Formats: sequence, structure tokens, C-alpha cells
Amino acid sequence: MNEPEDHEWSETRLRVRYAETDQAGVVYHSNYLIWFEVGRVELCRDYGFNYRDMEREEDAHLPVVEARVKYHSPARYDDEIVVRTRVVQARTRAIKFAYEIFLASDGAMLAEGETYHVVMNKQGRTRSFPLKYAEMIKNGKASADQQGGRESQ
Amino acid sequence: MNEPEDHEWSETRLRVRYAETDQAGVVYHSNYLIWFEVGRVELCRDYGFNYRDMEREEDAHLPVVEARVKYHSPARYDDEIVVRTRVVQARTRAIKFAYEIFLASDGAMLAEGETYHVVMNKQGRTRSFPLKYAEMIKNGKASADQQGGRESQ
Amino acid sequence: MNEPEDHEWSETRLRVRYAETDQAGVVYHSNYLIWFEVGRVELCRDYGFNYRDMEREEDAHLPVVEARVKYHSPARYDDEIVVRTRVVQARTRAIKFAYEIFLASDGAMLAEGETYHVVMNKQGRTRSFPLKYAEMIKNGKASADQQGGRESQ
Amino acid sequence: MNEPEDHEWSETRLRVRYAETDQAGVVYHSNYLIWFEVGRVELCRDYGFNYRDMEREEDAHLPVVEARVKYHSPARYDDEIVVRTRVVQARTRAIKFAYEIFLASDGAMLAEGETYHVVMNKQGRTRSFPLKYAEMIKNGKASADQQGGRESQ
Repeated sequence: MNEPEDHEWSETRLRVRYAETDQAGVVYHSNYLIWFEVGRVELCRDYGFNYRDMEREEDAHLPVVEARVKYHSPARYDDEIVVRTRVVQARTRAIKFAYEIFLASDGAMLAEGETYHVVMNKQGRTRSFPLKYAEMIKNGKASADQQGGRESQ
Repeated sequence: MNEPEDHEWSETRLRVRYAETDQAGVVYHSNYLIWFEVGRVELCRDYGFNYRDMEREEDAHLPVVEARVKYHSPARYDDEIVVRTRVVQARTRAIKFAYEIFLASDGAMLAEGETYHVVMNKQGRTRSFPLKYAEMIKNGKASADQQGGRESQ
Repeated sequence: MNEPEDHEWSETRLRVRYAETDQAGVVYHSNYLIWFEVGRVELCRDYGFNYRDMEREEDAHLPVVEARVKYHSPARYDDEIVVRTRVVQARTRAIKFAYEIFLASDGAMLAEGETYHVVMNKQGRTRSFPLKYAEMIKNGKASADQQGGRESQ
Repeated sequence: MNEPEDHEWSETRLRVRYAETDQAGVVYHSNYLIWFEVGRVELCRDYGFNYRDMEREEDAHLPVVEARVKYHSPARYDDEIVVRTRVVQARTRAIKFAYEIFLASDGAMLAEGETYHVVMNKQGRTRSFPLKYAEMIKNGKASADQQGGRESQ
């Protein structure tokens, strides 16, 4: 597959929900892992595929086997947040994503992290990426744009 | 089935998690629906069965089709909470539960509510309660105790 | 204040997150209360104000004192969801909202509900709506649009 | 302060909630960070203090500045879970905890991780641990037991 350096950042936005805050007045730290996933799903869409379809049609799942988050500055209720996601390593049976979380208003970095995933079937057995998806991951975002492969939101 | 009046309250306890609070310094209101479910599961155990097994072995699920909550007083971080759950209506293809949420320390009522469920298979088609489970619901808690049917926690 | 009938629906969209699903393969029911809140916040924005500012600057909070949800059809992972929110009753010290949740793709109604709120200060004492906000609620969405009062997202 | 090796594991138990599962039929990965926190709070109780009181009475908060989780095997609905928590590093203005998550039934390790925290006041300025709490952390669990300092649950 391509070297990770070839892979561009995908970007999506979300607004902090009241339910995501805690009594310290900031976003509770586990929610960043959920935002990472929002980023991952949008990266897939940018690459020309739908993660849901890969689960459904190919029985290929990407459970998280390792996660790491560094929290720099707290997000607060109603903040608009930018989630940037990038493939940093793609193997036949595994993939690693990197994330950066920014405040939309002033671009301050709030958090960064990585998640490492293996490809598994529903029964929890490791398998390879389905060929079609391996191709799309290799080609990345640029290629999906060229082919008009990006799904409309 | 039995008249609901015959059905006793089941009781379980939990401690408020930091993640369940919001920036107003109290428990975010959607969490009470999750606590109701904790109560429901423990009621099933008191009745001699495991809700998980009913889903797995009988393909009988109890999706919530209606929920109602009245919030009297806020729960706070690290409070010990008592969840009381009772069957208020049991039909062949539906069941209604009532809940009361108390503060363990002084018995103050924090919230009360009801959820209404229909029995469905995995595909979302309504069905009857599996016979064995219909029996256990009819007999309630007292019977499970007599039969030694209550699972140890 | 105005009769509720004068009040238009506000509309916002969101995409179902993986974290919002449960093992039945559908969105866990408590998440609809969180989506209702997303709708409420966007209604406020449509009315020309920011709920966050009302809490911060005026010490006026709107805790939920009662909630009701009817679930018609399950939302699923990656579905695009439309949340419609409307003021159905506005009093000096209380407000009631109604909600409808639709599937964006085919317009199927997934759920509907209501939440009833009282106006409180941080200490949990009931108070009136701050005058400025009472005005904006009375005037509704149309007025905010005329005045250019709607904040950009 | 004491060398981390002196610090014993604290242990607490919880049962997996339906709301914590996702459509893959297992616990959604962000919930482990919430369970880590449940473990942290019970460790504090084992050490003779209440984290809530430290926040309230001393304005000393412990925001997570870094978190790391390794997922070995999935937890499932209704599983009884053991959370083991240990102090691995205690500084004047920072503390690091390690966690292990086990299945109660057969002792299989499901996940392990670490969180790193700095001591901050409500305004987000770093500060030292309050003296009383620094002492209790130094003395650990054994000492709290001797002094009868452990609060009843």
C-alpha cells in the first residue's frame, strides 16, 4: 500500500452537545474517542466508501485494538469542533489512524491521538481488508475525488 | 397474567459516574433512561431469568416503544442511587414497567417514570413472550425466590 | 406570549454515530433525548439567541422536568437524521418543546416527543425568563430572520 | 512520595449495561475510559478519601491529560467486570494511574491502560495536591485500612 505520508487529512466538523460536558464545565474526556470515530467515518466517505457497507456487505469490521489521546485544552459546550483524520499506516490486516481536534473559531488544538485497528469478521477472526476497500485505502482521497467516487452527504 | 398490583418492586443500587454529570453540575437527564434499564435487568434477575438469555436463546427482544420521565430533584456525582422497578402491565406481546429513582442517603425521590415495550424478534416483527418467560413474569419475584430460581449476582 | 400555534418548526440534521447504536443493531433509545437537545439548541439559534449565553450571562437554565418519547421506527448507524423542534407552550417561568425525528432519506418518522422545562438559576431556584430572551421566544423564528438576528453557524 | 511499586491494586466491580454495547455486539471502546474512572474513584475511597470532596472543598481537580488503552478481548452485555486500578506515579502536581479490566467469570483480561492527570484548580491553573490528599496518596491503601479511614460504601 501507499506510504502514509501520501495520505491527506480528511476534515469534518461537529458542535459540542450539552450531554458531552461534565460537571467540570468541559467535555468529558471519553467523548474524544467518539469524535475520532466520527472523523474515521468521514475519512472513509472521502475515500469513496461507506464503513457501514464494508461491515454489512463484506463482513469486515475494524475494532479498535489500541487508542491513545493527548488532551491539550478543553472543548466546551456549543463549541464548533474540527476533527482531522489521517491514515498513518495501512497493512493487509490492520490500519492506524491519527487525529487532531481543533477549535473552529481560533484553530487552537484541543487534542490529538491515534487508534490502531485490525480487520476482523463478525466472529472476531482476523482477516484481510476486502480487495475493493484495500484499493480505495491505497488510493486515498485524491483518487476518490478524481473518480467522482465520493458519495454525497 | 397477574394483575400488576401483585407485582412487587425490585431494587438495585448504583453510584453516579462523573461521565453522567453535565456542566450544570447534575446528572444529564438522558441517563435516567439508562438507569431504568439497569433496574429492568435486575428485575428480570429477581424473577429468575436473564434478559440476555431471552434475547439470545429465544430471539425475543423488548424494544422501548414509549418512555416517560418526571424529574423531581437532581442526582449528583458520586451519589448512591436506588432504582426501584415494577411490572405494571403484562400482556402477551407487550409489557410496561414503572420506575422510581431515590437517593440512598436520605430516601429523597429524584425521578419516576414508565417504559412500554413490545416483544419483537431480531427482524423487528412482533411476537409473543416465550412461554417460559411469560410464566416467570406472571409468577413474579416471590415465586422465583421460592423456587430458588434467583441467580446469584 | 404568543400562542404556540404561531411557532414554526426549526430543523437540524445529524448523522447517527456508531457509539449511539446498541447490540440490537439500532440506536439506543436514550440517545433520542440527546438529539432532542440538539434540536432545542438549534431552535434557540433560529430564534436569534445562544442557549449557552443565556446560561452564562443571565444565570437562566432550563432543566428538563418532564420528558416523553414515542418510538416509531429504529434509527440505524450512519443514517442521516432530521430533528424538528417547536415551542408548544411558553410561560413566564416554563417552556414546553415538541420534537419529531425523521429519516432524511425517505422522510419516515422515527420518533416524536415532548420536554417540559422550568427556568432556574444555578442554585436551582425557579425564576422568570430574562426579558430579552422572553421577547425572542415570543417573536419566534420569523422575527429573528427579519432582524437578521440569526447567528451564523 | 512512595515509590509506585509500593502501591497495591484497588478493585471494583460493575455489570455491563445494554447502553454500553454497540451494533458489533460488544462494548463500545470509549466506555473503558469511563470504567477506568469508576476504578479511580474507588481507589480514592480505598485510600481514605472522596474525590468529590477534593474537588469541592479544595478546588483540586484531576483532568486527564493523556490516556492510553489496549483492548485484548471484548466485554459483552451483562458481563460482570472487574476493574483494577493502581497509582504508578505520584508527583506534587501530577499523578498516573494504571488499569486492568477483567471478566469476573473466568478472569480473562479484556483491556489495560493508563491515564495521566495534572492537578488543577477550577480555572484550569496547575497547582499542587492539597497536603491532606498528598499524604493519603503517599500512604496508600494499607494505611487507610489501618486507620479505619476507609469510608463505607
